[in-house]
Amino acid sequence: MDKYMHRKAEIRLHVLYPDGTPAAGEQIHVDQISHSFLFGCGAFDSVALMKAEDPQEKAFLQERMDKWLGLFNYGTLPFYWGRYEPVEGTTAFPETMAAARWLQEKGVRVKGHPLCWHTACAPWLMKYDNQEILCRQLERIHRDVSLYKGVVDMWDVINEVVIMPVFDRYDNAITRICKDLGRIRLVKEVFAAAKETNPEATLLINDFNTSVSYEILLEGLLEADVPISAIGIQSHQHQGYWGLEKLNDVLERFSRFGLPIHFTENTLISGEIMPAHIVDLNDWQVDSWPSTPEGEERQAREISEMYSVLFAHPLVEAITTWDFNDGCWLNAPSGFVYMDNREKPSYYALQKLIHGEWETHDVLTADEEGYISFNGFKGGYCIAVGQADAAFAANGPVNEKIILAP
Amino acid sequence: MDKYMHRKAEIRLHVLYPDGTPAAGEQIHVDQISHSFLFGCGAFDSVALMKAEDPQEKAFLQERMDKWLGLFNYGTLPFYWGRYEPVEGTTAFPETMAAARWLQEKGVRVKGHPLCWHTACAPWLMKYDNQEILCRQLERIHRDVSLYKGVVDMWDVINEVVIMPVFDRYDNAITRICKDLGRIRLVKEVFAAAKETNPEATLLINDFNTSVSYEILLEGLLEADVPISAIGIQSHQHQGYWGLEKLNDVLERFSRFGLPIHFTENTLISGEIMPAHIVDLNDWQVDSWPSTPEGEERQAREISEMYSVLFAHPLVEAITTWDFNDGCWLNAPSGFVYMDNREKPSYYALQKLIHGEWETHDVLTADEEGYISFNGFKGGYCIAVGQADAAFAANGPVNEKIILAP
Repeated sequence: MDKYMHRKAEIRLHVLYPDGTPAAGEQIHVDQISHSFLFGCGAFDSVALMKAEDPQEKAFLQERMDKWLGLFNYGTLPFYWGRYEPVEGTTAFPETMAAARWLQEKGVRVKGHPLCWHTACAPWLMKYDNQEILCRQLERIHRDVSLYKGVVDMWDVINEVVIMPVFDRYDNAITRICKDLGRIRLVKEVFAAAKETNPEATLLINDFNTSVSYEILLEGLLEADVPISAIGIQSHQHQGYWGLEKLNDVLERFSRFGLPIHFTENTLISGEIMPAHIVDLNDWQVDSWPSTPEGEERQAREISEMYSVLFAHPLVEAITTWDFNDGCWLNAPSGFVYMDNREKPSYYALQKLIHGEWETHDVLTADEEGYISFNGFKGGYCIAVGQADAAFAANGPVNEKIILAP
Repeated sequence: MDKYMHRKAEIRLHVLYPDGTPAAGEQIHVDQISHSFLFGCGAFDSVALMKAEDPQEKAFLQERMDKWLGLFNYGTLPFYWGRYEPVEGTTAFPETMAAARWLQEKGVRVKGHPLCWHTACAPWLMKYDNQEILCRQLERIHRDVSLYKGVVDMWDVINEVVIMPVFDRYDNAITRICKDLGRIRLVKEVFAAAKETNPEATLLINDFNTSVSYEILLEGLLEADVPISAIGIQSHQHQGYWGLEKLNDVLERFSRFGLPIHFTENTLISGEIMPAHIVDLNDWQVDSWPSTPEGEERQAREISEMYSVLFAHPLVEAITTWDFNDGCWLNAPSGFVYMDNREKPSYYALQKLIHGEWETHDVLTADEEGYISFNGFKGGYCIAVGQADAAFAANGPVNEKIILAP
């Protein structure tokens, strides 16, 4: 059995020339040009690119994003409240919206991350009482989900709820209200705000906790009718690859809700593994964390294996690697490219899957009535006969007439 | 400040002789004869006592239960489905009901444990499909809660839900339906069945898992309006005393729901501590687990400390020690008496608290109008002047006229 069967569609086309005559017996070039599946990555540098004024910096970021676009069709943009709105009322709207539109024009779906989180939260919120904090949190959601509607229609609505009310690294406004309201009520409120502002949006809950606690939280939220579109699972593996056993266990446990699963924040590194005793990854602060040749082979191998398992799972709809380049979060060698933008083995390994094994390209001979049939990966297609061509979408079975344009 | 203030009531009595004249200036003996607080223990041997036919065995069990009654006012009786109803339709009703009535006559509140649990479940259920299993589970609840109404009005409705759907030690009917329905729906169903059968009953959920998972489960259940009367917390400490830090942490975390808390299954042992690497306590199978003199002192000290912390906490309403005598669960030295019924130091240590420090006994002089006032631990009282006496209950403030009986 084809383990990727659910990723493919039966496609039958009646190929006609511009004048309406069938392309009988012709050689038809079939080329998939985009994926239905969301292959994602952090796209924070697209915001930097929008702001860059120095030509050298701009060229460097442009080169980086070109390589990014060589792999991905789905990008995460930063909406950390404390950075997005460092002073109440002064937001990073211009550059963030410019980046979102720029990505959208290139065919990239954009997700905003996150609308509610205790970390990187706005410090100015702490001067308000809990009722007012909640009020401003909901206003913030109304404002941003509304402003970006049509450009950003996917949101990590709330992040890391399992730990949220007991997070004790530092006082912050969101832990305060979560402790006050309880997890379920807070999640209900923030999802309701997002849903009423953009009813068509894809709304995620996201967590690094993959234990039974997160499962039970999801049960409680679904029983409380919280409109969760997809379950977000973080998988930062600075302390070593989960391996097939843990990966399959997580997939099995989170599948039972029947909801789409998004791997929202994946990290596999190409350097030394962080010691297992570190509980909060942020505690591992190093000046330099070199990528090594052995590490790079390992990273490429692990990425290939993990993406293959996830792509084969019927409920997984998206995989996002967190860092595109080395030297981002925790200074880790976590990217597909080095800090100077040169591709690492993991870049080519993933390219071989996304734009190789998992992409349909073929040359088919139309039958005497001009029909071709094939089973191809879901996404956008282009067919061509000589100079004439046409595009179509195949997110499911296709059985249609297609007229080539000269 | 008195840390037991919430355990006490202001009591003012106008003491009158049978003929209606005030007991002015008299010496009044005030003696607390029972507790409002539930000091509990497993009372499984009361069922054995009901069944005992051999006179020697009967005398031995009678002696054991007499000592039991010397400490406790609250007992847990076994309703493990597989043992209570080993063959479908054939139950241990006669001896269980006899034991419950016997305890009730002695002023003991009785709790049934448990109505739904994956462990010790009836094997004959497994021949049914999941819908039928659920159906029979709910019928079982309706039947037993109804049959025992007025005698057993407290129930551990469901036990160990956190692990229930992922319990993998052996296949069983309850894990099957919990996996199928999800935790919250199953808990909803079993509580609804118990509640509609006995709306006045005290209905508990009970778990050994005291992690954030149980907290989140409770959040979900309360949001789903499950009528939980009290939160049951197990505290089997075969691997060593929790200590004040863990105990206070658990109390703080489970207090935020504002519900009464019952410590339902407490164990502190007087022998060698079970190694920390054992995950499922049932895996520690030993032929002999001796009680040691040092262990007995430690057990007595730990019990005194733990009971004192719990009795001081305003939301705790019950503490149940699991085993009354050594050699029960896991063959552990977990009792207040040895296997031969001799009292251990822990027996006297707890007696000193329950029937010493935490019990009000006094001799007061009535004023010239026959009034006495005092602040006493909540419970039942007897007052006496010479041969004349009277009883009253003080579960809260009391301000009343009391007529002595000759």
